[in-house]
Amino acid sequence: MAKVVLNRKRKKRLEQGHPWVFQSEVDYIEGEITPGDFVDIYNHEGFWLAKGYINPASQIIVRVMTQNPDDELNEQFFVNRIRQAWAYRERMIPGVRSCRAVYGEADFLPGLIVDKYEDVLVVQILALGMEKHKDWILTGLLEVFEPRAIYLRNDVNVRELEGLEKEKGFWYGEAETEIEIEENGVKYIVDIENGQKTGFFFDQRQNRAAIRPLIGPDTTVLDCFTHTGSFMLNACLYGAKHVTAVDISEHAIETAKRNAALNGFTNVDFVVDNAFDYLRQAVRNGKQWDVVILDPPAFAKSANAVRKALRGYKDINLNGLKLVKDGGFLVTASCSYHVRPDKFREMIADAAFDAKKVLREVYWSGAGYDHPKLLAADEGDYLKFAIYEVHSRR
Amino acid sequence: MAKVVLNRKRKKRLEQGHPWVFQSEVDYIEGEITPGDFVDIYNHEGFWLAKGYINPASQIIVRVMTQNPDDELNEQFFVNRIRQAWAYRERMIPGVRSCRAVYGEADFLPGLIVDKYEDVLVVQILALGMEKHKDWILTGLLEVFEPRAIYLRNDVNVRELEGLEKEKGFWYGEAETEIEIEENGVKYIVDIENGQKTGFFFDQRQNRAAIRPLIGPDTTVLDCFTHTGSFMLNACLYGAKHVTAVDISEHAIETAKRNAALNGFTNVDFVVDNAFDYLRQAVRNGKQWDVVILDPPAFAKSANAVRKALRGYKDINLNGLKLVKDGGFLVTASCSYHVRPDKFREMIADAAFDAKKVLREVYWSGAGYDHPKLLAADEGDYLKFAIYEVHSRR
Repeated sequence: MAKVVLNRKRKKRLEQGHPWVFQSEVDYIEGEITPGDFVDIYNHEGFWLAKGYINPASQIIVRVMTQNPDDELNEQFFVNRIRQAWAYRERMIPGVRSCRAVYGEADFLPGLIVDKYEDVLVVQILALGMEKHKDWILTGLLEVFEPRAIYLRNDVNVRELEGLEKEKGFWYGEAETEIEIEENGVKYIVDIENGQKTGFFFDQRQNRAAIRPLIGPDTTVLDCFTHTGSFMLNACLYGAKHVTAVDISEHAIETAKRNAALNGFTNVDFVVDNAFDYLRQAVRNGKQWDVVILDPPAFAKSANAVRKALRGYKDINLNGLKLVKDGGFLVTASCSYHVRPDKFREMIADAAFDAKKVLREVYWSGAGYDHPKLLAADEGDYLKFAIYEVHSRR
Repeated sequence: MAKVVLNRKRKKRLEQGHPWVFQSEVDYIEGEITPGDFVDIYNHEGFWLAKGYINPASQIIVRVMTQNPDDELNEQFFVNRIRQAWAYRERMIPGVRSCRAVYGEADFLPGLIVDKYEDVLVVQILALGMEKHKDWILTGLLEVFEPRAIYLRNDVNVRELEGLEKEKGFWYGEAETEIEIEENGVKYIVDIENGQKTGFFFDQRQNRAAIRPLIGPDTTVLDCFTHTGSFMLNACLYGAKHVTAVDISEHAIETAKRNAALNGFTNVDFVVDNAFDYLRQAVRNGKQWDVVILDPPAFAKSANAVRKALRGYKDINLNGLKLVKDGGFLVTASCSYHVRPDKFREMIADAAFDAKKVLREVYWSGAGYDHPKLLAADEGDYLKFAIYEVHSRR
């Protein structure tokens, strides 16, 4: 294996447990490499640090696979890593059948995402080093999960940065492309072929369950950015009197309707509308709900977009707060990594000030068990989720 | 009612929902006041802001009771506030019988703490304005809870800052001073007369339950700062093979032993020792556990003490990490308000670096439902609680 020797000035990122080496941190490379190869990583004093895979075309030139020198990077290593990832889910979410099963770096398998929908797996391979070892990944997935089918959702732009083509389709076996899953006792149809990302967002599983105490037989709920209906469906399951579910996408609302029907929930109004406009109009019309839920897509996709994103978040949270009955609840989230938790809280405090509301924080959380975070890799800490009790002030 | 008029330069704390007025924010007071009286609060432009109670002897000269001008501060107001506080607990923790029932400012009853142990209440009255309205509080507690007895634990130094005497004893009815309660399915004996604070720390209820997935029939657990055994008892309940429980206080360990016996748990070793020393010695002896729990008392009681406190936290977390078997878990907490969440995480990252461990964050939380937080009052955000999966690196 070739040696990648790091320079003296770099931050001790690897020693902190961060799994990436940037181009700028490399002093020199000893030996021949083909992109995607495994390499040994040494510090400038010749001390062995880690093994990983290299892609000279990527800003992240090496991604770490192990910091244990005894590990051999072979098929068995891949099988073991996949087995450990699944064992962790089975431990943390007893009885789980559908969840994110492998979460890249955070499962010590950088560049590999596996979502499990019952007995069908949906896989994203995001880096060349993983693409080159597809066979070992397949062996691991078959051995650990014994799936009926595996579908590749490699239709993501990040693959182009790695010099990989975009593609999607069945990798192993065959199945319908709409899979029925259950989460928190709610059934969903997941479109693994055309749904966003791999078809479903598992990261809010625990947060969706956290709305349970807010919901009683008299509770009315407004669910903005409902997408395929996940918070709406949980509100119905917990016995809400009525839910209004809003999304700008007609296709999303169609799916949300199908999901409601699948669960036998009939107390839902579906609205195809821009949530920003809907909220503003509802304030103008003097509407009020017991619980208002805001689970928007990421507004800030880069650090430059944070200020504009915060204006967007404040807009919906300000109007959302005005729509909550006195003593009711605002449920609010942001999945923009670049909007850090303190900024998110500050934005909500500003919105509360403007809306003349006093907020009581009842619940604060991030992504659930199947989205663990490396302590050293801030990048994984993207989801903010909070529940506030809302009181009026003069 | 007298008028307290605030100066122009103050921060808009009240408008943000923070319930305190400091001496330095007052321009002048119009009308006669007796310490403890209710007053109206106005801004410098003569705009009404809030009603609260005044104590010119305290740095916090006024504590806000309401920001709604229609509220009359009378007995019925107190009864309603206490009823709302209890309704909130019953909603968030279905079936709850023992918990913090009133949490001062965060329940819009500044200076009043009520802990409910089955049908016995333990009360702390921390401010003169509350002391003067004890009768209304008593009416509220009797009407809402119909308790068998109410015990006053007014033996706290903060009362002296308010010009109040320290006292303890039954306020209403009579009961044994050791009450048996249940939390998460674990039974505890609570010493309401001589236990710390009011006898029990309810704030970690949800966090104690959060260790459940870490525990299996083969799991060994080290519980440091076990106090009266709460994490130890939850570990036993969830089926741990063996627990070592350490506390410096002989009295705490005696209570922990009684609690273990009460629940029929026999697989526990009890150690009376300074946890700092115990951890260091255990590292020296090469001991290892599957799960190491660190739930220390507050190391930083003031902003000045933060640096020293962080050294203390790092010491126990560094050694704690060394004692976790590869792939096992560190459960770690800090209840020092002055050690802010980012500093706490940084400290753990430093400890992980020194211990040559890669940490995966599995769970992050604060205090539970019965300890809500006013968004505007940072002071309430004191508890940090985290679970990390621990992996060795070279």
